Amino acid sequence: MKYYGALEAGGTKMVLAVMDENGNTVREDTIPTRTPEETMPEMLAFFSADAVSSLGIGGFGPLNLDRNASEYGHIMETPKLPWRHYPLLQAFRDSLRVPVGLDTDVNAAALAEARLGAAKGKESCLYVTVGTGIGGGVIIHGKPVHGLMHSEIGHISVVPVPGDPMPEGICPYHPHCLEGLASGPSIKQRWGISAKELPPDHPGWEIESEYLAQLCANAMLSFSPEMIILGGGVMQQKFLLPMIREKTLKLLNGYIAHPAVSEGLTRYIVTPGLDTRSGITGAYLLAREAERKSSLPD
Amino acid sequence: MKYYGALEAGGTKMVLAVMDENGNTVREDTIPTRTPEETMPEMLAFFSADAVSSLGIGGFGPLNLDRNASEYGHIMETPKLPWRHYPLLQAFRDSLRVPVGLDTDVNAAALAEARLGAAKGKESCLYVTVGTGIGGGVIIHGKPVHGLMHSEIGHISVVPVPGDPMPEGICPYHPHCLEGLASGPSIKQRWGISAKELPPDHPGWEIESEYLAQLCANAMLSFSPEMIILGGGVMQQKFLLPMIREKTLKLLNGYIAHPAVSEGLTRYIVTPGLDTRSGITGAYLLAREAERKSSLPD
Repeated sequence: MKYYGALEAGGTKMVLAVMDENGNTVREDTIPTRTPEETMPEMLAFFSADAVSSLGIGGFGPLNLDRNASEYGHIMETPKLPWRHYPLLQAFRDSLRVPVGLDTDVNAAALAEARLGAAKGKESCLYVTVGTGIGGGVIIHGKPVHGLMHSEIGHISVVPVPGDPMPEGICPYHPHCLEGLASGPSIKQRWGISAKELPPDHPGWEIESEYLAQLCANAMLSFSPEMIILGGGVMQQKFLLPMIREKTLKLLNGYIAHPAVSEGLTRYIVTPGLDTRSGITGAYLLAREAERKSSLPD
Repeated sequence: MKYYGALEAGGTKMVLAVMDENGNTVREDTIPTRTPEETMPEMLAFFSADAVSSLGIGGFGPLNLDRNASEYGHIMETPKLPWRHYPLLQAFRDSLRVPVGLDTDVNAAALAEARLGAAKGKESCLYVTVGTGIGGGVIIHGKPVHGLMHSEIGHISVVPVPGDPMPEGICPYHPHCLEGLASGPSIKQRWGISAKELPPDHPGWEIESEYLAQLCANAMLSFSPEMIILGGGVMQQKFLLPMIREKTLKLLNGYIAHPAVSEGLTRYIVTPGLDTRSGITGAYLLAREAERKSSLPD
């Protein structure tokens, strides 16, 4: 039996798994993200123990995913300073001496949802996590989208909601950006309590769902994914999803004539099919892909 | 020598061409778009005269491009009532008895720009026409994007620009939508004169370029095309493009660390490489593709 390494590299924790050819988890561990000097040896030891055939990484970003760039595989301008410009892909490849596949954490999650989760059988989807930040992964024509860089859909601008007491948001880069207006920390800053503590009938949820509905409507109108999957901590509030669907329908206002819309988006804007396993499962798929590619001629 | 039919089907005019295997135009004609009963026989006669091997259509939309749908190949909820629910693809296929490829006019233009124009050699681009309406075509992984339907990027919502005397726009479906705020008719309605007549130093251009910059920034952040190509009548005002680039840079505010951004987007937000021939050239490429596909087993 062959083994594959999967790493969900987050800014606060690293989820590591060894999985077999059938996708079954053999070992798993979670360790806090400290500096590369502290964290890398632990991770390398974890993956070395089972002689993995390849490794897949879904990493926090921004990442350089341009295969022609000298900094390919590096973490770019992250606020996690010890990791800034760290050659993540190379560090693992050079130590483990196996093929390494790398994508953003959210592209990995989107890939897993498209292959094995809520969007199974579809050629495209958008996966968005709404939590400490807002990030999105995009699958089109069955493959993760990179393009110029990779999606940073949390930073699109949205129209301020009337009555929002904090209409500029808290993003240090962009006024009116989605992450600055609808992430967990923005809820906390606006109302003084966390999303978890905000009661379901609090007007804050009307505002939150309106911003996330703008995300959904704009994504549908821009690149038309076949499904939108919303995950992350803020989405744990189960009453939020129907509010987002309803407001997305209002924003589209009948413009997109499609059964998915006319039936109320109930099978279109959904929660992850793999629950909290999308990210690590996506990393596993990246490992499989890296092995497959390495056995092909260039 | 084989011949191919290319049709750029617009709401006001139909551009018809017969082109050879090398992409040279053999014959071309433009006729006004009236009802299907009046316009179809003329078009069929045009393409029949050269016994084209296949036909490609870049059509006004919305179009049903879902191959599994019963209305595949039909025009959908268009304001051009005689064409609503017209089976465009089938009407040509059944009469000409050749393979017919169909996509939106803007996806066809985007395809031509990606294969032969400004984005030649790239795997992705966004093509947007800014004129009577605002429409966009998206190429990702080398192929036009359909997804749930197809891009309707003209209808994304944008943040009202301070000082805009008409901040809700004129779209009958969506307040704050790009088309309602930045199309030719919205300029006319806001200032009483057309884009062509609006002097270069008129404050209207600050507003116009700000809305189009929001389009560019949001597209970059959402699905990260490798190039954005802006065409259409409004873009004929040559001073507009640098204004859009400058405002897009301000909106991104350093968030996307990429050479294309740091060099000022001068090679990233550009005009069409095929000038006004993107659409008809794209239709020709769709014809070639339709012929190729028809000769393959299903």
